[in-house]
Amino acid sequence: MYKTIKTELQEGILTLTLQRPDALNAYTHQMHEELLHFYRTVNDDDEIRVIVVTGSGRAFCAGMDLAEGDSTFASDASAEDFRDIGGQLSMQVQKVKKPIIAAINGPAVGIGMTMTLPMDIRIVKKDAKIGFVFARRGIGPEAASGWFLPRLVGIGKALEWTLTGRYIPTAEAVATGLVQYEEEEPLTKAYEIAREIIQHTAATSNQFTKQLLWNMLGEDHPYASHLAESKFLHWAGQNADAQEGVQSFIEKRPVKFPLKASDLPDFFNTHDEGVTVK
Amino acid sequence: MYKTIKTELQEGILTLTLQRPDALNAYTHQMHEELLHFYRTVNDDDEIRVIVVTGSGRAFCAGMDLAEGDSTFASDASAEDFRDIGGQLSMQVQKVKKPIIAAINGPAVGIGMTMTLPMDIRIVKKDAKIGFVFARRGIGPEAASGWFLPRLVGIGKALEWTLTGRYIPTAEAVATGLVQYEEEEPLTKAYEIAREIIQHTAATSNQFTKQLLWNMLGEDHPYASHLAESKFLHWAGQNADAQEGVQSFIEKRPVKFPLKASDLPDFFNTHDEGVTVK
Amino acid sequence: MYKTIKTELQEGILTLTLQRPDALNAYTHQMHEELLHFYRTVNDDDEIRVIVVTGSGRAFCAGMDLAEGDSTFASDASAEDFRDIGGQLSMQVQKVKKPIIAAINGPAVGIGMTMTLPMDIRIVKKDAKIGFVFARRGIGPEAASGWFLPRLVGIGKALEWTLTGRYIPTAEAVATGLVQYEEEEPLTKAYEIAREIIQHTAATSNQFTKQLLWNMLGEDHPYASHLAESKFLHWAGQNADAQEGVQSFIEKRPVKFPLKASDLPDFFNTHDEGVTVK
Repeated sequence: MYKTIKTELQEGILTLTLQRPDALNAYTHQMHEELLHFYRTVNDDDEIRVIVVTGSGRAFCAGMDLAEGDSTFASDASAEDFRDIGGQLSMQVQKVKKPIIAAINGPAVGIGMTMTLPMDIRIVKKDAKIGFVFARRGIGPEAASGWFLPRLVGIGKALEWTLTGRYIPTAEAVATGLVQYEEEEPLTKAYEIAREIIQHTAATSNQFTKQLLWNMLGEDHPYASHLAESKFLHWAGQNADAQEGVQSFIEKRPVKFPLKASDLPDFFNTHDEGVTVK
Repeated sequence: MYKTIKTELQEGILTLTLQRPDALNAYTHQMHEELLHFYRTVNDDDEIRVIVVTGSGRAFCAGMDLAEGDSTFASDASAEDFRDIGGQLSMQVQKVKKPIIAAINGPAVGIGMTMTLPMDIRIVKKDAKIGFVFARRGIGPEAASGWFLPRLVGIGKALEWTLTGRYIPTAEAVATGLVQYEEEEPLTKAYEIAREIIQHTAATSNQFTKQLLWNMLGEDHPYASHLAESKFLHWAGQNADAQEGVQSFIEKRPVKFPLKASDLPDFFNTHDEGVTVK
Repeated sequence: MYKTIKTELQEGILTLTLQRPDALNAYTHQMHEELLHFYRTVNDDDEIRVIVVTGSGRAFCAGMDLAEGDSTFASDASAEDFRDIGGQLSMQVQKVKKPIIAAINGPAVGIGMTMTLPMDIRIVKKDAKIGFVFARRGIGPEAASGWFLPRLVGIGKALEWTLTGRYIPTAEAVATGLVQYEEEEPLTKAYEIAREIIQHTAATSNQFTKQLLWNMLGEDHPYASHLAESKFLHWAGQNADAQEGVQSFIEKRPVKFPLKASDLPDFFNTHDEGVTVK
């Protein structure tokens, strides 16, 4: 059904592949619609435990497809109605309740890089070309990267990279926390982490934890976290996952969590604008 | 009077030792009550300049005591009334006005690690086992770590660690800012820093600075900091500590600040939920 | 016209030099007034693309001039009216819309260091003496550093440095993100980055990006960034800079952006307290 992306589910890992290898997986409006559709559906499928995002061929994503030339960034919408498509994507990605790992297998620039910022773990191919090149094209940050980037790497590096628009050596990307790993085979590492999550942790825990941590970035005081954590812990304390977690630990045997992600109550509200604590 | 913790005051340093070495200092309800009592009292004692927290024996704290088996995380409280005890501890710790240094002398997992996040400086024993293992027990972040952790290490590492629940190499803990030092003898390093603070800095300065920095994490604009700093600087400019600070510097002699911590006016409000700027 | 600072404009780079070399460029009330005046004027001058700040002689700035002895931090203003002069400077600096690079060419302590925190990129001379020494003088954080510092280096290092007041090795300053580079010749590196910005990026992009990133630190949700980015991208999509950016990229030729910084509409409000999204 999808033309520009490919999805494959195996042993709890949903691999999403950007599938325009001849164009270095450059972002088009069709890819945009297909990605939005994909991300809208994943929360409901308990078979999906972890999502891994990668690119087909030698690139991850070379940014917006510039085939339309100098009208690439033009739009018919009014100033009030216009919404950056990168930002639309980020708003959707942050509503995904399952862990998302980006396996950045090659060049990732512009939206190719910013689309990974709302994901949870980023792994980059050693020496791949990555950068936030907007200022070199006469445009600006998109995909809500103005918010995400300083929270990942600190305001210092975020400013330096976006003001110069320069490429970022992957070693610098690791040192600053932009990505968690640089690897010769990013996909292999991504699967390793995905399997670690699936094998050892509870889907209910993952789902709550991910929503909690992202949400707490917007809270002024730790008390908000205390309240949200208390609600979840009270629920967990009466359910089978926590019992199995403790019991397996005491018996020194592999854990086998009984609950599914969809067993978790909604501790968070999902709005158009994102997700907030109930 | 305390059974599960020990306190000792020497030359301005209050050493708080978790004192259940046969159980790797695992956290019990009694330890919880004793810690809350301890932290409630320390602000009033001018003899205490710096608090150092460590564990007795080979561990710092092995997490919640699981001796009660699979009911460890169960509770009789209603969902509305239930409050995570780790969070109760963190809410109390953040009201302490004096610098707190964690000397993590051995394994620290679960609440053993999260209880140190509201402290000011963390030193870990090289290669000690540390981690945020909640997802592996079917539970979730506690002690308000959903708020503290991303502010210490960035949202990237915070997500990776809590989603996988894996142990964190101490070198990685240093590189990411989770701890400030890894040492063969964390307690020795903690005392070194404590003495540096006591010998060279004003108690009034420490107290204001600590409250200011934690509070500013919750402020949207630097102007809030400008106002709070102005209030303190105006007060300091009319008092003996600043005069002695400048005078000793000009005369190139050791400083001897005359004021006590309790001489500092309350520039902050202490609520149930934490501390805010007045 | 200025007595304590010097300004020189060359090829789009405005070099601002603290000009009291015999006093290690220590901060005086006159320097304060001159700096405020300077920063108030720079937004209106399209010839200025990037600002580089450095010190004359062997120091960057040795902090407040203590020549007035123990009354240095005293003031006649009431507690309500008193405003820290460092904070006044920071409030002005954050209203500057152009990239500011600090070339910290030697010792920078107290306000010498904190004045650089609202700047965008910091480069320090290898092994220069830098630190936040307030607690050693009986005073506290100023220049709104209570807000800026934790956002640059995380709350952990910010607390350790301000509580001990110790000097910070420049390698540690780089590793933590306090500065972006340590160099034998900080000014050379600063000019290199300034020329990179001028040569390759659009003034309109720089101006929007800088304001966006600083502002987003105060926003709770990425949606705010999505909205602000959409407004700018809509505007850029109808203007010549984005067209030239794409066209030059496609034609693989050097870019030559036609717009001036003053062509950018005001997407942000400038208040006494700072800058906010419109």
